[in-house]
Amino acid sequence: MKYDLEQAISVLQKTPEVMKTLLSGLSSEWTTNNEGGESWSPYDVIGHLVHGEKTDWMPRLEIVLSEEGNKTFTPYDRFAQFEMSKGKSLDDLLSEFETLRKENLNTLRSKNLSAEDLQREGIHPELGPVTLSEMLSAWVVHDLGHIAQVSRVMAKQYKREVGPWTKYLTILNFIPSE
Amino acid sequence: MKYDLEQAISVLQKTPEVMKTLLSGLSSEWTTNNEGGESWSPYDVIGHLVHGEKTDWMPRLEIVLSEEGNKTFTPYDRFAQFEMSKGKSLDDLLSEFETLRKENLNTLRSKNLSAEDLQREGIHPELGPVTLSEMLSAWVVHDLGHIAQVSRVMAKQYKREVGPWTKYLTILNFIPSE
Repeated sequence: MKYDLEQAISVLQKTPEVMKTLLSGLSSEWTTNNEGGESWSPYDVIGHLVHGEKTDWMPRLEIVLSEEGNKTFTPYDRFAQFEMSKGKSLDDLLSEFETLRKENLNTLRSKNLSAEDLQREGIHPELGPVTLSEMLSAWVVHDLGHIAQVSRVMAKQYKREVGPWTKYLTILNFIPSE
Repeated sequence: MKYDLEQAISVLQKTPEVMKTLLSGLSSEWTTNNEGGESWSPYDVIGHLVHGEKTDWMPRLEIVLSEEGNKTFTPYDRFAQFEMSKGKSLDDLLSEFETLRKENLNTLRSKNLSAEDLQREGIHPELGPVTLSEMLSAWVVHDLGHIAQVSRVMAKQYKREVGPWTKYLTILNFIPSE
């Protein structure tokens, strides 16, 4: 499947509602437990997505499209949400994510990106040169990866409860690599 | 987390809407592509969930609770959806799943299962004796596993498009074991 702006937006605009549908109204055991060690809970993941809307995708888009200056992206802080989410409920974060995503997609649409724009490059601090099209594709995959993660983390809360079914429910045996 | 009927139902009742929010209105490239080989597309997964509502969880519940007869479950046909979904659109399947799930959860609630009921056993054709509590836990994990699967299959459609980002987007490197 080739990157296509409208096809990508059709997925990106769904993510806040998918997360809200999946998580809102659940007991905190489902939403604040993680999958062990330093891994993230669903609550942590939503905080991470809020942070990404503020500091990651759109600022990087502006860097790529800018006619001047340094094309190197600011490194992304993968742990910022632990500080930024303090005092906020899961519903607060879900609403904030929804609002920010809507604004960001409006901005993205307003750029009227051409095929040439999508081939413009920025410098990722670790990956090196990346095109705008690659970055915007990564945004979609990043969303979907976190939906899968939230589902997996929830599933793991019943790891012991399923007894012999662990054998078939392969999601329970997945060990996150980061 | 210990199995609790109401906690489990709070997740089970969300799944049809989660799937609908995630998939409805998308182009067929997102919903009918799979992750290679004999793997399933999102469309196939929803067909599988519809089939499960009809032939798997509730009939097995009845077998466990029945006072007489053979306690062995009928083996589940993991490929039935390829025949049963024929001629149906994704939206047809999403609606059917929603209706069946609602009916099944009403039936489940109407059983007023006691702690003793949850310890009653059935015989899984391959796993051997399983308790009702294990089976009902597996139902929740099965749902969440398929939400994760649908997200992953969609993510993989952009595997080439993300370029060097593949390194960070670990969901793209997951190979399904079944």
